[in-house]
Amino acid sequence: MIVVLRLGHRLGRDSRISTHVGLVARAFGADGIIYSGEKDQKMMESVKKITEEWGGPFEVEYEKNWRRVINNFNGIKIHLTMYGIPVQEKIEDVRKKSNGKDLMIIVGGEKVPGEVYDMVDYNIAITNQPHSEVAALALFLHEYFEGEELERNFEKPRIRVIPQERGKKIKKIKK
Amino acid sequence: MIVVLRLGHRLGRDSRISTHVGLVARAFGADGIIYSGEKDQKMMESVKKITEEWGGPFEVEYEKNWRRVINNFNGIKIHLTMYGIPVQEKIEDVRKKSNGKDLMIIVGGEKVPGEVYDMVDYNIAITNQPHSEVAALALFLHEYFEGEELERNFEKPRIRVIPQERGKKIKKIKK
Repeated sequence: MIVVLRLGHRLGRDSRISTHVGLVARAFGADGIIYSGEKDQKMMESVKKITEEWGGPFEVEYEKNWRRVINNFNGIKIHLTMYGIPVQEKIEDVRKKSNGKDLMIIVGGEKVPGEVYDMVDYNIAITNQPHSEVAALALFLHEYFEGEELERNFEKPRIRVIPQERGKKIKKIKK
Repeated sequence: MIVVLRLGHRLGRDSRISTHVGLVARAFGADGIIYSGEKDQKMMESVKKITEEWGGPFEVEYEKNWRRVINNFNGIKIHLTMYGIPVQEKIEDVRKKSNGKDLMIIVGGEKVPGEVYDMVDYNIAITNQPHSEVAALALFLHEYFEGEELERNFEKPRIRVIPQERGKKIKKIKK
């Protein structure tokens, strides 16, 4: 089981970024996301709606007390941060250590409390450059799954894409 | 030379996503980004400022007429879209065909005009699931460079990260 924890969501300002974090978590093979920070029902609904249409399973939850979420998690905890050790140096170790265990991937917003760095098993950088928690999460999951997440099938979708060289083709799936 | 073209930027609503697209372009090895849609000087300045602090080279430009930008580009043009052919089936072909040529990577916002699909050499999907243009761009560049972009060095940075297992360490670079 892989869960993403999104810290420090702010209403309005972070709405689209947090939506993208949730959709990336789902598309790249995580089993769910927990949002913390300001509760944003509308943003969470948009992620749930994608799961209903495009398939799951994928859980979307809110928890105000992120410290408890991290402390109570029984498994390997990874914080993605540009200040951490480069992913290419750590990913094999993470894969070995997390074998058979649950994994929590923590992504922050602009200001992550310093204590987070000490609450986790790994602080991992997807490049040591400033960019995006959306991209960092996608790259981490891609490296963790070694590309197999690109072939993931989702259960009970209502629609799916039929890949095309040109244009768009969507198939609606009958119940 | 690799340039990213970001279509259909909208003031306000897309500001942070477009910033992230620009920062990902830079961090994952593109040479510049061209924004189209509504002109957003403040958003573009935020990307330029990161390049000044963290190093380049990386160009940031605005072009209203995106059709001309695409038509005048001399090189291989790739449109990232969830409706396209999965990246894992096409990336080797793209790498061969673009060898020695310039590459343009086009990422849309929510509504990409249908004609874009016919103006490019490839329509490529980073999964056929809905997620994020930020993640799609990062994954495409990561696949294209086969992970070498993670080791990229930037010229003339003012600051850089010294990777740490715990906490943050930044080095300021003297001129």
